[in-house]
Amino acid sequence: MAVGLPAVPELHPVAGIRLGTAAAGIRKPDRADLLIIEMQAGGLAAAAFTRNRFCAAPVQIARKHLQAQSPRYCLINSGNANAGTGTAGYQAALDCCAAVAALTATNIENILPFSTGVIGEPLPLDRIYARLPDALADLGPDNWLAAARAIMTTDTLPKGYSLSRIINGQTVTFTGIAKGAGMIKPNMATMLAFMATDAQLPQDLIQNCLDEVVDKTFNRITIDGDTSTNDACLLLASGKSVTIAADDTDALNIFRSAVFELASRLAQAVVRDGEGATRFVTIAVAEGQNEHECLQIAYAIAESPLVKTALFAADPNWGRILAAIGRSGPEDMDINLVTIHLDDVCLAREGGRALDYQEAAAQAVMSKPEFTIHVNLGRGNATTSVWTCDLSYDYVRINAEYRT
Amino acid sequence: MAVGLPAVPELHPVAGIRLGTAAAGIRKPDRADLLIIEMQAGGLAAAAFTRNRFCAAPVQIARKHLQAQSPRYCLINSGNANAGTGTAGYQAALDCCAAVAALTATNIENILPFSTGVIGEPLPLDRIYARLPDALADLGPDNWLAAARAIMTTDTLPKGYSLSRIINGQTVTFTGIAKGAGMIKPNMATMLAFMATDAQLPQDLIQNCLDEVVDKTFNRITIDGDTSTNDACLLLASGKSVTIAADDTDALNIFRSAVFELASRLAQAVVRDGEGATRFVTIAVAEGQNEHECLQIAYAIAESPLVKTALFAADPNWGRILAAIGRSGPEDMDINLVTIHLDDVCLAREGGRALDYQEAAAQAVMSKPEFTIHVNLGRGNATTSVWTCDLSYDYVRINAEYRT
Repeated sequence: MAVGLPAVPELHPVAGIRLGTAAAGIRKPDRADLLIIEMQAGGLAAAAFTRNRFCAAPVQIARKHLQAQSPRYCLINSGNANAGTGTAGYQAALDCCAAVAALTATNIENILPFSTGVIGEPLPLDRIYARLPDALADLGPDNWLAAARAIMTTDTLPKGYSLSRIINGQTVTFTGIAKGAGMIKPNMATMLAFMATDAQLPQDLIQNCLDEVVDKTFNRITIDGDTSTNDACLLLASGKSVTIAADDTDALNIFRSAVFELASRLAQAVVRDGEGATRFVTIAVAEGQNEHECLQIAYAIAESPLVKTALFAADPNWGRILAAIGRSGPEDMDINLVTIHLDDVCLAREGGRALDYQEAAAQAVMSKPEFTIHVNLGRGNATTSVWTCDLSYDYVRINAEYRT
Repeated sequence: MAVGLPAVPELHPVAGIRLGTAAAGIRKPDRADLLIIEMQAGGLAAAAFTRNRFCAAPVQIARKHLQAQSPRYCLINSGNANAGTGTAGYQAALDCCAAVAALTATNIENILPFSTGVIGEPLPLDRIYARLPDALADLGPDNWLAAARAIMTTDTLPKGYSLSRIINGQTVTFTGIAKGAGMIKPNMATMLAFMATDAQLPQDLIQNCLDEVVDKTFNRITIDGDTSTNDACLLLASGKSVTIAADDTDALNIFRSAVFELASRLAQAVVRDGEGATRFVTIAVAEGQNEHECLQIAYAIAESPLVKTALFAADPNWGRILAAIGRSGPEDMDINLVTIHLDDVCLAREGGRALDYQEAAAQAVMSKPEFTIHVNLGRGNATTSVWTCDLSYDYVRINAEYRT
C-alpha cells in the first residue's frame, strides 16, 4: 500500500559500522526483531529524541549514556516499546545494556538502547538475552537492509537510503534506515532512524547538523498527529574516511546537504508507508508572517480528518482545506488574500472559489498518488512545508486490530 | 448508529415562538431543508458564533444584525453552508434576509440567516425564494420536531430537548434543537443550535448566561477536531412568561441552570450522533494546575486517531492514552503522579501499568456504549471534561462519500 516508495536502493556499507540481527520472538515468532549496530572505537554520535513527556525507558537511558560516552553499540528491538513500563521497564532497558556490555567487553554507557512496538507491555528479557549472541555473531558491514527489516512494526516495506559525496578528495558514504508507520508526528525525531557516515567532524558540529536537518525533515511529517513515546534519530560518524575541520566551510556544507538528503528520503519514506496510506501529499504554505503560523496552518490541514478522508476519496473538497486554515490561522489573517492551489490548479481566491475553477482539473490532480496543496497567505515572506498522507479504511482497520 | 441517543422527547412550545419548514430542494429533493423561526416583537436574543477565521457569510451577517436590532425571524437552510463563497455569497445571504423582511413587513436587520451543509457551492437563491411563502404559511408553535429535522445534514436522528422550571411562581419553558454531525469542534458554539425560552431578562444577562453555558457544553465536544465555518448557537427569550430582574439572583440561578441543562443535552446529542460514532466517551481530566492544561490534555486524547480507533475496537490500549497525555501535557508534568482510569478500572499509575490491572475488566468497560476516561494529573485542583466519540470505518465512508 506504500505510495511511490521505491524499492530500497543498494545500501552502501559505512566503514567502521557493522550490523547484526536475530529473531528473539518478542512479539511474533520467526522474524528478526533484534538489531545491534556496532561502531568502532573512536567514532562520535549525535541524536534527537521525542519530546513526549512520557518518553520511554530506552529513550531516557540512551539520552543519559550519550552524554557520558561515545556509543559503541546500539541495541534495538521491535515489537515492544518498553514505554509506560515504570521503574521495572527502566531497569529492564538498563539490564539489556549491561548484557551487551558484558558480551562485548565494553562499558554499559557505550550501549544505547532503542525500542519500538506496543506500549505498556513488559520487555521479554529472557528471550532477548538468549538471542544477543546470535545478533553479535551476525555483525557485518553489509547488513543494512536486514537491519531496516528488523526494526519494522506496522511498516509494509523496509526503508533505507544511501549516498556518497566527495569531501576534500575522499569518498564519504552516508547510509540510513528508518521505520514508521503510525503514531507519527515526530517532535524532534521520527520513531526510529539510524544514519551513519564514515566522515568525522567535531562533536558539536555533528549535533548541530543533525538538529538542523531533523527540524526540516523528520519534524515536517505527520501521519496521524500522534507523537510517539519512542521517537529517536541517531547519526553515527565513525571517522574512518575524511576528518572535517570546524572551519572547513565547504566540506561542512557538503556534509550537511548530504545528511539533509538522506534524512529527507527517510522521512518521506515513513509517510509514503503511513498506515493505510494511498496518497503522499505535500502541504506547502507560503507568504506567512513567520514560520510558526505557516507550520500551524500546514499541520491543521495535514491532520484534519475531513481533509484526509477527502484526500482518500480524491474529492477536491477545498472547503475543508479552507475551514482548516480558518480555524488555525492567526486572528488578523485576511481571508481575501488567501489562495489555495492543488499543484497548478487554483481552487480558491479572495475568500471563495476561484472564478476559473474546473472541478475536473482539480479531480485529475487529486487522483494522482502524489501532489502538493499550496496555500498562499499573502501576508509575509515565511514559507514551510510538511508531508502527510490520507486517512483510509485501512488506517482504521490497522489501528482497530493492532493488538488483537 | 447514534450512541444512546433517546428519541426526541416531547418538545414543548415556547410562548411567543413559532416555527415553519419547507422543502426547497437545496441539495436533495423532497426533504424539508428550509426553516423559519419567528419570535414575536419584544423578545431578546443572545448568540455565540464560530471563531473560524473563514466564517461563512450568514455568520457575518447574523452577527451584524444582532448588534443592530432584536431578531424577529431566523432563516435557516441545510444542504449548503454558503461558506467560502466570497462577496457573491455575502450578497446572497443578504438577499435572503431582504426577501423574508419583505414578506413579513419587517426590517432586514430583524432577520438572522444561518446555513449548514456543503462549503463553497453557490446558494440556490431562486429555489429558496420560491419556498419562503410555504415556510411562513407553515408557522406554528408545535413545529419544533419538524424544525429539528429540517436542519439535519449527516445527522442520522433529529436532536431536541425541552424542560420547564418554576421561576417566581410562573412556569417557564426552555426548548432547543441542534444539529451535527461532522466538522465538530465548536469554538464558541456548535454547528447550529437554537434554544428558546418564554422568560425575559436584561439583554446583557442573556448573553452572559449563553456565553457561560456554551463554554461548558458546546465548547466541550469534539467529533473530529474540525471547527466549522458556520457554528452558531442562538438563545431566544420571547418574554411571554416571567420577567427576571437583574438583581433576582435566585431566579437567575434557576434560569442559568435550565439553559445549562438544555445545552448539555443538545451538545451531548451532537456527539452521540457523531459521524460513524459507535461509542460516547467522556474524557475527564482532574487535578491539573489550571483549566487550560486540563483542556489541552482532554482534547489531545479526544482527538487522537489512535485513541479513537482503539475506542472503536473496544481495545484498552492505554498506551495510546498515555502517549496523548505525554505529547500535550505541560513540560514540567511529573508522569509518576498521573493515573488513568476507565470508569473505575485503574489502567495506569506511577508511569506504568497499574499493578492490579486486569485486561478483562478494562475490556468490559470499553465494550459498553458509554464510559468515562478519567485522567488525574496530581498537580493541582483544576478539572474539566469533554465529550467525544470513536473513529470508525463509517466515519471514513461518510466523509469519503459526502459529496459524491
